[in-house]
Amino acid sequence: MVEIIDGGVTTPQGFKAAGVHSGVKYRSLDLAVLYSEVPASAFVGYTSNNVKAAPVQVMMRENSPKLQAVVVNSGNANALTGRRGIEDALAMKQAVAAELSLDPVTVGVMSTGLIGRFMDMHKVRYGISRACRELSQGREADGLLAEAIMTTDTIKKECSARVRLSDGTLVYIGAISKGSGMIAPHMQVLHGTTLSLVTTDANLSPEFLPTWQSILDDSMNMVSVDGDQSTNDTCILMANGMSKGAVADKDPEFIEALRTVMTKIARTIAMDGEGATKLIEVQVTGAETKDDARKLVKTIINSPLVKSAIFGSDPNYGRIMMALGNSGCKFVLEDVRLTIKGGDMEVPILDSGAPVFQDERSVEVVRMAMDNKEVTIAVDLGAGSETATGWGCDLTYDYVRINAEYAT
Amino acid sequence: MVEIIDGGVTTPQGFKAAGVHSGVKYRSLDLAVLYSEVPASAFVGYTSNNVKAAPVQVMMRENSPKLQAVVVNSGNANALTGRRGIEDALAMKQAVAAELSLDPVTVGVMSTGLIGRFMDMHKVRYGISRACRELSQGREADGLLAEAIMTTDTIKKECSARVRLSDGTLVYIGAISKGSGMIAPHMQVLHGTTLSLVTTDANLSPEFLPTWQSILDDSMNMVSVDGDQSTNDTCILMANGMSKGAVADKDPEFIEALRTVMTKIARTIAMDGEGATKLIEVQVTGAETKDDARKLVKTIINSPLVKSAIFGSDPNYGRIMMALGNSGCKFVLEDVRLTIKGGDMEVPILDSGAPVFQDERSVEVVRMAMDNKEVTIAVDLGAGSETATGWGCDLTYDYVRINAEYAT
Repeated sequence: MVEIIDGGVTTPQGFKAAGVHSGVKYRSLDLAVLYSEVPASAFVGYTSNNVKAAPVQVMMRENSPKLQAVVVNSGNANALTGRRGIEDALAMKQAVAAELSLDPVTVGVMSTGLIGRFMDMHKVRYGISRACRELSQGREADGLLAEAIMTTDTIKKECSARVRLSDGTLVYIGAISKGSGMIAPHMQVLHGTTLSLVTTDANLSPEFLPTWQSILDDSMNMVSVDGDQSTNDTCILMANGMSKGAVADKDPEFIEALRTVMTKIARTIAMDGEGATKLIEVQVTGAETKDDARKLVKTIINSPLVKSAIFGSDPNYGRIMMALGNSGCKFVLEDVRLTIKGGDMEVPILDSGAPVFQDERSVEVVRMAMDNKEVTIAVDLGAGSETATGWGCDLTYDYVRINAEYAT
Repeated sequence: MVEIIDGGVTTPQGFKAAGVHSGVKYRSLDLAVLYSEVPASAFVGYTSNNVKAAPVQVMMRENSPKLQAVVVNSGNANALTGRRGIEDALAMKQAVAAELSLDPVTVGVMSTGLIGRFMDMHKVRYGISRACRELSQGREADGLLAEAIMTTDTIKKECSARVRLSDGTLVYIGAISKGSGMIAPHMQVLHGTTLSLVTTDANLSPEFLPTWQSILDDSMNMVSVDGDQSTNDTCILMANGMSKGAVADKDPEFIEALRTVMTKIARTIAMDGEGATKLIEVQVTGAETKDDARKLVKTIINSPLVKSAIFGSDPNYGRIMMALGNSGCKFVLEDVRLTIKGGDMEVPILDSGAPVFQDERSVEVVRMAMDNKEVTIAVDLGAGSETATGWGCDLTYDYVRINAEYAT
């Protein structure tokens, strides 16, 4: 039984966190350190964008199977910073290693913020030194770390779960994620997220990697705010084994718990998409292949026309069908079923390739379903048995405002 | 010598047009007919969206090599209308054929407007009958046809050219296009635009088809307003040979003239993108393959983050590099050159993988270049010799407003 609890990255045993103001940002917290009392098995997913930020390049090159600390700064992405950026990312790892008496290779590094500016290492070093001294455990520490890694985020993407493994061990999972714009993660383990830190005191072996990839593929990789994949996306899972249980790689309860946490985080990221007023969930069923199902989810969720229609509760479901036609997935129009759900309403839209509703008054039903904080678009392709679910948000005036004024 | 002249679809010899109010729309003109005195060789490009509107399905099935008339309605796309939609599209052709004493197979049909509503054929038949009686030649007729096919368009996309062929014949080309949202045409001749009507009194044989496809690929198919490809895109070229010249299939002057007209129309469509305040031209050079060059143009032009930054003249060029990384095209970051041009300014951005500008004051230069009605993003990949150019527009508050309120 997976139990969602009030917790964060320091809820699993042996993890400590800190968040401080280094000065890279004008006022807010901008530098965080996460630390595990013992070396933890690390599973990392990176952006598959070919322009990779310096910290991503450094971590991919080292590909360390064990991490004991992670340093994260916000305000500057250390991306497009050439050789100097690489040196700065390495220096961040070294500074943490020196403060905490670790091997630099066991220190992860992540950056988020503006692209194309050199890091102010004087400030970053000061921040690292302070954060390493302020490491602590508990909800306050979780909160400081969360605050320090946020950029345009308006809500904290935090989730924690407790689950009893088959061998009786009680393990904890904690996760924090940041990200609201430039979001369409397509992380591949060892090659390609938003910034996410996931901690657990479960015991995991390197064999857990494909399971982690599959969980990422169904959660973080199914979120899209604007279809733009960042240069910095990184998702780090640290498993320090301090629960003392058996290896949990194949434990269905553990996998279920981790999947639940990651799905909740994914939904929260979509809900907090830049300027978003609504969460859009797209459920595709009856696809011939998994790839078709995922492609269709992404095409619908990334369509500016669908996103604007949902913002205005505009019952223009033709746009969903337009997206279907553009997705490249296999279907026969007459077999497709489209349903729009919102609140308690569930409105079927298509019947044998033509809309159910024709007159203005009945279309109002669709508008009422769309006029909810969470709108679900369910498409049954009737072509097979594969499914996929993904999350996005509406396209609003505020998205435009936020992104037309970012660097200023 | 290609000469751009003030003209429209009835400028070439033998073409007549009409635009009327049929009542499908509340007030504006909503039905147009284009007619050629003699049967014209027809070259048609259709949307490659797999959800195709009824008129597209009908025209693709008949695949007529000759057309003598085209009927176009706005206000209703006749898309997602099942079997009844097909019957209505056929009935539109038959009505025109009856009025003008033509074989229905030589009558083209196009629709644009709301998706998922049945046509009001009573109104459409009335409109067809009136339009066929009002057919005439000249700038007024061009204007009425143009008005009748517009939806959210704010400017008329019309262009005309005169050119002397190698054999001394003087031929004319006229073109009109409509479309401002749901635009990312990817037409393939015989399988896949916005609604465009192109007329010429040149003499073309069926062999002209690949040349037409190549012109479409470099013009209409390089326009993207929102990356959403419509269910109705159709582009019809009618060549009625009334100039009496030799077959112009391979005539470089003619090809150049048609390319010039189609490129101008493509740019105008981008400039009139829904809510647009700026035209964005993306020029890619030094790509290893043509496909890489086109992919990169499309990725940059479709990025909501790039589009919002241009709207706000926000010098956040990191987003362009993010798009580069996501495009999937081949490059070595250190070899890439990025230049932003606007007005008389031409600002180099990257040097060996890192930005030229670091301090706030110099970044102002980039903002000044971006603060123009036309902004050019030039990327030299340094990986080969292939090039591509495409057009799009900024993402603005008005795009959201227009598309959140369309059906209402």
